[in-house]
Amino acid sequence: MKMAYVKNAELARFTFDALTRCGLEKSEAEIAAEVLSYADSRGIDTHGIANLDSIYVHKLRCGAIDAKAKGRWLREKGAVALYDAEKQLGLVAAKYAMERSILLAEEFGIGCVVVKNSSHFGAAGYYAKMASDKNMIGLSMTNLGSQAIAKPLNSAKNLLGTNPISLAASAGEQQDFILDMSTTANSSGKIKLAARQGQGIPPGTLFNKDGDSVEDPNAYLDGSGHLAMLGGAQATGGYKGMGLAMLVDILCGCLSGADVGPATGEDEARDTTVDNNIGHFFLTINTPWLRDTGDFKRSMDDMLASMLQAPTFLPENEIIYPGIPEVRTAKVRASQGVPLDSILHGRLDALAETLSIPAISVI
Amino acid sequence: MKMAYVKNAELARFTFDALTRCGLEKSEAEIAAEVLSYADSRGIDTHGIANLDSIYVHKLRCGAIDAKAKGRWLREKGAVALYDAEKQLGLVAAKYAMERSILLAEEFGIGCVVVKNSSHFGAAGYYAKMASDKNMIGLSMTNLGSQAIAKPLNSAKNLLGTNPISLAASAGEQQDFILDMSTTANSSGKIKLAARQGQGIPPGTLFNKDGDSVEDPNAYLDGSGHLAMLGGAQATGGYKGMGLAMLVDILCGCLSGADVGPATGEDEARDTTVDNNIGHFFLTINTPWLRDTGDFKRSMDDMLASMLQAPTFLPENEIIYPGIPEVRTAKVRASQGVPLDSILHGRLDALAETLSIPAISVI
Repeated sequence: MKMAYVKNAELARFTFDALTRCGLEKSEAEIAAEVLSYADSRGIDTHGIANLDSIYVHKLRCGAIDAKAKGRWLREKGAVALYDAEKQLGLVAAKYAMERSILLAEEFGIGCVVVKNSSHFGAAGYYAKMASDKNMIGLSMTNLGSQAIAKPLNSAKNLLGTNPISLAASAGEQQDFILDMSTTANSSGKIKLAARQGQGIPPGTLFNKDGDSVEDPNAYLDGSGHLAMLGGAQATGGYKGMGLAMLVDILCGCLSGADVGPATGEDEARDTTVDNNIGHFFLTINTPWLRDTGDFKRSMDDMLASMLQAPTFLPENEIIYPGIPEVRTAKVRASQGVPLDSILHGRLDALAETLSIPAISVI
Repeated sequence: MKMAYVKNAELARFTFDALTRCGLEKSEAEIAAEVLSYADSRGIDTHGIANLDSIYVHKLRCGAIDAKAKGRWLREKGAVALYDAEKQLGLVAAKYAMERSILLAEEFGIGCVVVKNSSHFGAAGYYAKMASDKNMIGLSMTNLGSQAIAKPLNSAKNLLGTNPISLAASAGEQQDFILDMSTTANSSGKIKLAARQGQGIPPGTLFNKDGDSVEDPNAYLDGSGHLAMLGGAQATGGYKGMGLAMLVDILCGCLSGADVGPATGEDEARDTTVDNNIGHFFLTINTPWLRDTGDFKRSMDDMLASMLQAPTFLPENEIIYPGIPEVRTAKVRASQGVPLDSILHGRLDALAETLSIPAISVI
């Protein structure tokens, strides 16, 4: 598929223009542009500008996200706080909430903020990295609110979301560790991306009602292919992926008052105009209160370097850890630009016309 | 294989006798007996009395665990604390640390305790459940210290441990949610159990150097079979299992000053007489500070009931969630007793003789 290449700053400009046109304040549109740029610049193509039209603008225009919502703190006590996003853009609510958890960690050694009535917050790693950039450990999670798009073991009904977990911890000389993973075997975004780009998906990530693996990503879109939980079958630990997804629903949903997939799911997920009452969970640990930063980073470096230097079974293979592929991609894209496939590019051109904003300039 | 059945109280008596004979104070041996009973009574057979001779007594007798160690608090500030177990029995150190995290959560809304210089702490779920029994959310993790027993993607060297994660949250009318999972596709304990009982293991949990699945558990014991990370191959999310295991090493090891597998691993793991400098991580969230207990439990019940009531693809299947199998087993064992296979029973009889304590009475 033919790709157009776009400078990251131009994608951010486009996001900013689109969201201010939808009624967002400039400061909030800047945050959103920054969070989406984080994803696009690092190759997390499923969580960047690809969602601008289909999720953010779509939901802003139909009122499922409220451009004027300011959110409010419902509970603030000690090192924990509950934020009601009041249908605010998830990208903005999440950044405010993570900032607060960092402030709490500075005061108490650890800070925990949960959010309800929010919306899609982009790449979970952005928020976790906010803490690791300050030499703390950051943890972020989101559920999918009332949407249920995955069937745990034996279920014929969608019950769970892709419910991602991200943890970021900074190293010294090695690349920082940034885990950002869905708790399904694959994310819905990657399957949609494969469908858009006409590619197959690996066996073991989608299955049909007979339990057989399906490699056509369109099966997910037409409802005949079901997302496998991380771990796959019962015998290979599929109940662990299910358990992790539930862990995320408990921390993001039951704890905050946001919706949780199992209790609401499936049918609502097909209606993209509803407010899904998504919940998030943010945790910051003030690392230096437990271990001196130099010692912590030496431990991180020892661990990470040992992994990179370990022998592989096949000489052509390498061992990498979460955080490395993204930094590699970021280096390439900083010079070459971010690739946009023609379908996405066409969608964004159409969005520009709809909103009367300048179309994206390619390199 | 022929099974002997033993009352749970008798297993606890035996553990207490064995550990006091090894020099532990009564109050500490009582804690250890309680933690191991938790596992045996619920069917977590890999983390109960099966480790009494091979890990706890063995390491106490060779000095890798110090029966007289009392541990000390190295850092205590705000809602976080660092505990140096000073080679104390992990079962005891972990209970003290989790108790402290609960006290911190009562004071600050959240409490976090990390532990270094500890040893095998048994079933992670025991500690998480201490918080959920108080209507809080408990999270517990342990790394394996200097031991590395799993090869992440492409590695020909052991780098990671089975690094378990447990989260417990109490429901209202439904069974409480207690996730207790290793971050490998299977735990080493389950593979050893299958080997002892002459059973095969599911495909996808062990692989050989060519990357093929191995179903003979003895391949793990002889070093030719390698533990798969949760998610299996790269394409089905194996990097997620690897990432989660590293997350555990960061929180339990880098943050506390305990050893981490990648930086030390493999060869040392073969020497069972060393102190592995294991680290733990405990977190308690004071749920009622964020959401009223009644509302939280209603959310939990809605989620859990929806999962139990969802239709299945095959009518003979059911959907269960983490926590249910253990409670079912506990009901059976409360009346029938805990089954001991003949090899384990023989080992424990030998231990009784070595330590001059009364052998286990079977039902």
